[in-house]
Amino acid sequence: MQQENRFQAIIAHAKEYGFVFPSSEIYDGLSAVYDYGPWGSELKKNIRDYWWKSMTQMHENIVGVDAAIFMHPTTWKASGHVDNFSDPMIDNKDSKKRYRVDHLIEAYADKLKEAGKEKESEDLLSQMDVLLSKDNFAGLKQLIDDNKISCSISGTSNWTDIRQFNLMFKTEFGAIASDNPEDSIIYLRPETAQGIFVNFLNVQKTARMKIPFGIAQTGKAFRNEIVARQFIFRMREFEQMEMQFFVRPGTESKWYKYWKQERLAWHLSLGTPADKYRFHDHVKLAHYAKEACDIEYEFPIGFKEVEGIHSRSDFDLSQHQLYSKKKQNYFDNDIDEKTGKPYGNYIPYVIETSIGLDRMFLLIMSQAYDEETITKEDGSQDRRVVMRIPVKLAPNKLAILPLVKRDGLPELARQLMDECKPHFRCFYEEKDAIGKRYRRQDAIGTPFCVTIDHQTKEDGTVTIRERDSMEQRRIKLSEVKQEISKFL
Amino acid sequence: MQQENRFQAIIAHAKEYGFVFPSSEIYDGLSAVYDYGPWGSELKKNIRDYWWKSMTQMHENIVGVDAAIFMHPTTWKASGHVDNFSDPMIDNKDSKKRYRVDHLIEAYADKLKEAGKEKESEDLLSQMDVLLSKDNFAGLKQLIDDNKISCSISGTSNWTDIRQFNLMFKTEFGAIASDNPEDSIIYLRPETAQGIFVNFLNVQKTARMKIPFGIAQTGKAFRNEIVARQFIFRMREFEQMEMQFFVRPGTESKWYKYWKQERLAWHLSLGTPADKYRFHDHVKLAHYAKEACDIEYEFPIGFKEVEGIHSRSDFDLSQHQLYSKKKQNYFDNDIDEKTGKPYGNYIPYVIETSIGLDRMFLLIMSQAYDEETITKEDGSQDRRVVMRIPVKLAPNKLAILPLVKRDGLPELARQLMDECKPHFRCFYEEKDAIGKRYRRQDAIGTPFCVTIDHQTKEDGTVTIRERDSMEQRRIKLSEVKQEISKFL
Repeated sequence: MQQENRFQAIIAHAKEYGFVFPSSEIYDGLSAVYDYGPWGSELKKNIRDYWWKSMTQMHENIVGVDAAIFMHPTTWKASGHVDNFSDPMIDNKDSKKRYRVDHLIEAYADKLKEAGKEKESEDLLSQMDVLLSKDNFAGLKQLIDDNKISCSISGTSNWTDIRQFNLMFKTEFGAIASDNPEDSIIYLRPETAQGIFVNFLNVQKTARMKIPFGIAQTGKAFRNEIVARQFIFRMREFEQMEMQFFVRPGTESKWYKYWKQERLAWHLSLGTPADKYRFHDHVKLAHYAKEACDIEYEFPIGFKEVEGIHSRSDFDLSQHQLYSKKKQNYFDNDIDEKTGKPYGNYIPYVIETSIGLDRMFLLIMSQAYDEETITKEDGSQDRRVVMRIPVKLAPNKLAILPLVKRDGLPELARQLMDECKPHFRCFYEEKDAIGKRYRRQDAIGTPFCVTIDHQTKEDGTVTIRERDSMEQRRIKLSEVKQEISKFL
Repeated sequence: MQQENRFQAIIAHAKEYGFVFPSSEIYDGLSAVYDYGPWGSELKKNIRDYWWKSMTQMHENIVGVDAAIFMHPTTWKASGHVDNFSDPMIDNKDSKKRYRVDHLIEAYADKLKEAGKEKESEDLLSQMDVLLSKDNFAGLKQLIDDNKISCSISGTSNWTDIRQFNLMFKTEFGAIASDNPEDSIIYLRPETAQGIFVNFLNVQKTARMKIPFGIAQTGKAFRNEIVARQFIFRMREFEQMEMQFFVRPGTESKWYKYWKQERLAWHLSLGTPADKYRFHDHVKLAHYAKEACDIEYEFPIGFKEVEGIHSRSDFDLSQHQLYSKKKQNYFDNDIDEKTGKPYGNYIPYVIETSIGLDRMFLLIMSQAYDEETITKEDGSQDRRVVMRIPVKLAPNKLAILPLVKRDGLPELARQLMDECKPHFRCFYEEKDAIGKRYRRQDAIGTPFCVTIDHQTKEDGTVTIRERDSMEQRRIKLSEVKQEISKFL
């Protein structure tokens, strides 16, 4: 299957089988926002829980926080988001369509190249880079005018001036009656990381953490993306799973390498083949960054970032110290072998691991989705869509299916439900032919089906069917719970 | 201890021991917003997971969704929030303080009563009720002026006009360049329920649900409360755990009673004494509501709502049908015994169970917090603060404490850590005297401590200490994991 078709097939499957719906779909949806359905919400929760357990419970030097989405607005002055988290934009007055200036010019440069005008294309791009680096908006506007770049919708070159468009969502907060509405403006956090940084000392002191240690958090973040697309890959509302690891200055490179490997190992622990992943080391770094890379996965739309590992120096804590006038020092009483004295006071350096939960969800869906042609016992061919979701992440672990709706089979099935459901999520279904029921469970990724039939009443055995191999075998009814638990 | 003091003690304890911090505290906090710290984030997650499991995994006819905070703005027209989710407010021009009109007048009526003017007080309140019911803002303003009601901060009666203040937070969304900013206004959801209603048919069809069935959701909601106070009891950003149960019209009263009892049983399953709870049946109902009640818990600040059970008729689905022009019908092919025919098409009725996660957190903290005077072996007296958090909700289940930092005891302790931590959250600590370490675990609610001492090396036993009774006994090191697992 073509990769683009495969991507469309996954999106359609996600909707049809209750994984992901367009947000507020009855009102024709909300652009770049999605809702997770009955099986999507379970899969998403299972991914989040798997990350949380592996980061906090399994690491005694990592604890969690759950900071609010609303933060004091000075947070975003300190972090640089108020001043720098923006893109230069331009609107076409006729179509009302808004463009990111660099995207608009790049698209035109691509057209030039396609038309064989490679030199002109390159010149245009290098002029743009110079102007962008100087925030020379008048110059950029001139460049658009000179090249008669037009809007793809209206076809006209009737442009507004260029202005900065901050990607943070704003809202008015509280109950202070002020003539200046700026007094009560707050932002929806564009990242969860700052909720960790502003709580650094509170966490370190109350949980008595010693460096090196980490703080983990999962939660929503919001960015008013101009070009939000590709299903749940880039949304305006999304969820992050971030961990900031605080280290002694001078040890950051060691820990950066450690977390790079540790995070890749986490991905591989889910059974995804290693060749679907690659590191992409950043060449161009933020001024405060020491090293940075992305963990990329080969989505049907190509290799794309799913997680970032960043060595952020003491930038964030220093900025918060500057803006809050509150010391962000840690006293390290470990002995420095060189001096024989404690390392003493410093602002720690930070290694960040930041993964998009929605992207991880899309990764699991992309990796799991499989269309298979199967040969039935009578020699005829059939087709199935199977979601090969790792057992520990699957929305339901076990489907319990009485063969028929009579002869006491549903009663036996219910007994098994009652035995199993406190331990893992089960799905009960008694309608339709058994083959049809198997297909539906394949489509939502249920790793095991158990069928209760007449033989069950005779010898206490059931058929257990494995999703990926479709292999069936009989085991004792009384051993079902234990059999499934082995995989969890 | 006085109840007010007890409440203050809990707030102080929550901060000192890493449960709850004021949001962005280094910037002096953000009013009515809080962050959950290392142990608070675990406790909050455990409460959420306990609710989720009991509602979805344990009920095969309830599935989840995870809808976005951003929804299509028409959602809030349909639900009535745009028009009705507001309070009449008035600002004092000198202090800039904003008041809810009813609160301002009520406070003055209280003063009259205290001064012995009971008749005047009652007259004032009944006048207010009449004016409020008619949305007569000019009349209310006149009432404030006539009584010379003044601001408690400025002391003046220099008031603005009264206006409606909608409690929904607004933000501008997307990248449409419009002359009318209203085109791109969206709201932060003030409740999670509508994310369930707009997905009703998507969920019913994709998960093949048959009535009666429920849809559960946990997630953030936002209200720009004017008077937000009492710690995490009333916040501007908070988390709800809601379940909407869809039933055949005519059966709603039966299901309302069912969920009232089921939800109370859930609360009692956590070991809270029944006399700490009571139902508060609503006398005044919304026009669409059939029955409604609160489950109240006796917080240190008195009996207050922690959960609401509401029989909402077909109001929400009908409104969404009206505004979206999309049928919200369910076809019920069960046979009506009276007619011998299927019940056929209808818009289902809804029973809602809605609980505040933050309030449930405060409930657990309030119930758990205990200050105890204990007599030591030498007869002297000591004091401890112990958080008697139910074992399944405790942030850490087990603290592993080597008695001293040498003689191979830390190594044995680490082995136990490695054995136990994949199964439940453990805390390792080797610093300070053992008594001090026990106290710290009491303060964060760890139900069990295991001490590794020199005898462990000889006979393979450890001391296990139970938090609530402080009882200590020796068990085999190899049995620790199983011993704790019994309680989970």
